[in-house]
Formats: sequence, C-alpha cells, structure tokens
Amino acid sequence: MTYCVGLRLDRGLVFMSDTRTNAGVDNVSRYRKMFTWTQPDERVIVMMTAGNLATTQAVVSMLDERTKAPEERSPSILEVPTMFQAARTVGKVLRDVIRESAPSQGPDAESPFKATIILGGQIKGAPPRLFMIYPEGNFVEASEETPFFQIGETKYGRPILVRAYDPDMSFEAAVKLMMVSFDSTLKANLSVGLPLDLLLYETDSLAIKAQRRIEEDDPYFNLISDNWGEALKSAFASLPDYEI
Amino acid sequence: MTYCVGLRLDRGLVFMSDTRTNAGVDNVSRYRKMFTWTQPDERVIVMMTAGNLATTQAVVSMLDERTKAPEERSPSILEVPTMFQAARTVGKVLRDVIRESAPSQGPDAESPFKATIILGGQIKGAPPRLFMIYPEGNFVEASEETPFFQIGETKYGRPILVRAYDPDMSFEAAVKLMMVSFDSTLKANLSVGLPLDLLLYETDSLAIKAQRRIEEDDPYFNLISDNWGEALKSAFASLPDYEI
Repeated sequence: MTYCVGLRLDRGLVFMSDTRTNAGVDNVSRYRKMFTWTQPDERVIVMMTAGNLATTQAVVSMLDERTKAPEERSPSILEVPTMFQAARTVGKVLRDVIRESAPSQGPDAESPFKATIILGGQIKGAPPRLFMIYPEGNFVEASEETPFFQIGETKYGRPILVRAYDPDMSFEAAVKLMMVSFDSTLKANLSVGLPLDLLLYETDSLAIKAQRRIEEDDPYFNLISDNWGEALKSAFASLPDYEI
Repeated sequence: MTYCVGLRLDRGLVFMSDTRTNAGVDNVSRYRKMFTWTQPDERVIVMMTAGNLATTQAVVSMLDERTKAPEERSPSILEVPTMFQAARTVGKVLRDVIRESAPSQGPDAESPFKATIILGGQIKGAPPRLFMIYPEGNFVEASEETPFFQIGETKYGRPILVRAYDPDMSFEAAVKLMMVSFDSTLKANLSVGLPLDLLLYETDSLAIKAQRRIEEDDPYFNLISDNWGEALKSAFASLPDYEI
C-alpha cells in the first residue's frame, strides 16, 4: 500500500509520500514514490504514484525515455508547454502501460496492474496546477472546493485534512498538517511506512523550495507523533459528555 | 455502506450503529442494523450487522425462528447457556444464509452476499462478552488489547477510537467518543447516515441501561459535530509548526 498527498495552497504546492511497498505482509521493500522533472526558471513537475509497482516504475521509465540511449533522450514532459499537456502525457503513458500488462481478457477486464498518480507543478507563463490521474489515463484538477488529492490508503488521514486545511496556511503549518495526516495513517496501516518524502514548491519560483526525506529518527515527526495523541485527547476532553 | 461500533468498557458495553443502506447512490433506504434479544434478569444480547441487507435480514429472521408459526417459536438465542454459544449459533446461521444465496460456483467462490456481525451482551452467571462474527461463521472476541470492534466503513472513525478510548471511561464519555467517531465517518462517506441507534449495557444489570435513536435534530450530536471541528483545529494549532 501507499499514502501520498498533494496539497494546493495560495502560496504554492506541498507534496508528501511514503516509501513502503509490499506484496503480502512479508515481502516489504522501500521505493521512492515521488519523482521530479525540473528546468531551473522554467518548470518544476512533481509526480507521486500509488498502485502496482511494476506499472509505476514503467511509467517513470517511459517518461524518462529510458528505452532510448542516454544521449538520445529528450523527455517530452520537459518540453510540453503546459501542465495540462503534462497531465495528458502522463495519463497516456499510464494507460498504455496498464493495457500492455493487462491479461488478454477483453477491454472491460479489471486489470490488477492499476496505478493512480498525483501530478503537480508549474511551467513558466501559467499558474501552478495539481492533477489526479486515473488508471484510464483521464484526470481531474484540484480546485478551491477540492484543494488536495490523496492516493493509496486515504481514509485514516482524511478527517484532519478536511478539518484543518486552510488555503491561506503557511508552508510550515501545511507540513505539520501532512505529518499529522501521515501519522494517523501510519498508526493504522502497517503497509504505509517511514521514511517520508516531502517537497515544497512556492508559486512562481520555478524551483523546488525544499525537498526532504523524513527518516524514522526525525525529531519533528516524532514530536508530532507523540504529541498529537495528547492533543487529540485534550480536544476530546474539552467537549461536554453525553447525558444519559 | 454501514458503520457500527461495539465497545467494551470496564463498566459494560456500548453499541452504536447507523441506519443507512444503499444500492448505488440513488437507492438509499433506512433500516435498523441493531437488534436485541432480552430476558429480564437473565440475558441481554445485542447484534449489529453490516453487509448485504438480504443476508442480514435473513439472519435476524432465522434467529427469531420466523419460519415457524408465532406460537411455535422458541429462538435458541434466548435459550443458549453462554454468550460463546450465542456467537456460535449466530455464526452458523450467517454462514448457512450466505451459502444458500451464493451462486453455484464451487466452495471457493467469493460471495457477494457477505455480511459481518458484532454480537455482545451478557447471560446470567458469566461476564459480558463482545464478539465479531465473520461471513464464514467463525468469530473473535474483544479483549483488553482489542477492546472494540468496528464493521462497515471503519477507517475514518478509527483514529479517534484508538487515541481516546480508555477502558475506565464513563458511559457518558464513551457515548461522546462514539459520536465523534460517527461524525468523522458521516462527514466523509455519504453512505453512512443518521439517525443512529445507541445502546448501553451495564455489567451484571441483565437489563438494557439505555437505548436511544439519535435523530438528525439531536442537540447533543449537533453540538459534538459543530464543536469537534473547532476542537481539532485548536489541537492542531497547539502543536509547533515545521521549520523549513
């Protein structure tokens, strides 16, 4: 399983992903699920993946044009003129990879090789955009009403996102929000695990603001994890009891 | 979908269930998912169901022996000597109902008519017990380490149960905990809906302590629902921001 969140703020975009993959509970590995394509002062594109690992790795390789010799590669994701076009490109590659691996059971067969992608970033000349791309290759964009996307094990970490998100929040508060959401998920689902990858993008900077790997011994994550339980209990205690 | 929780406290048992059932999003109905069998000063048995409605209704009817004329019925669940035996009885009925409706695809076929049950209560001479019964008819019992069971749409409402549950808590606080857990679930999943059924059982009373239906205009539920968001935000604000 996996947990990734992409968040749209007034001041930019925030991405966080875990790094655990598993086939069953005894075949657990660590893989990066966050990928970036950047050209300084021109574009920053961030992708996070959930789903079948063979599919998502193939998508990344195809986007990097690794079928070609290194000197002949010119990834189209570094050349498309808009984020919308980048989402279409990723969607097409994703759909093609899934179709290729799908067993020959006809077009309506449910493929076990599905994956879902969050794609966000900015290309010079247009505002930052954030998309969720489905296994079928189509996609939706984040908006004021739906300012964040989650993929993978989304449910445990959703209530705090819904309640505490504010489009005007600082990057510092947004990272805290992500950490609480991830902590709730990690505590509930063994197949989502540390370390976490964090990336911050500030609108119109056309460069990555910060990119960190949050390891198991990260003091801030552990502070949040330890204190969120107490803070929740205090919040709970602050409400009046039921009268029977 | 459905959401039901059974909670084991030092002082007794707490049950809560929603009442919404749906086939798709446009075929929504209201059905009771909490059922009781009682004999004053002798036994209180509470059952909550999640899953296929035809299955769960058939299970209740079979337990009530509605295949017989009213005057000939003597439900075995009112006669079994222990809660363990009650769980075995319910498990057998559940398994038989599912098997009967399952398409003839062989014993390993995945049945779409599955259901899961929480069964709790007390029979004179033994302590209260709480079970979760699987579609296969087998079951597990709540313990100090696993003091509550959830069935249906369990994930949104789980983090607060994990964090705020205390075996020593009062019934008043336990109902508050249930309300917060249900509110988080209702806010996230349209297929879980008000009204809610609440039942409290106090150890060794051998009678229902309280049984309420929480309707949409319930002032306490609305108080919790309105204030929990603010309490969560305050809890979130009380933690230090991340330093970039």
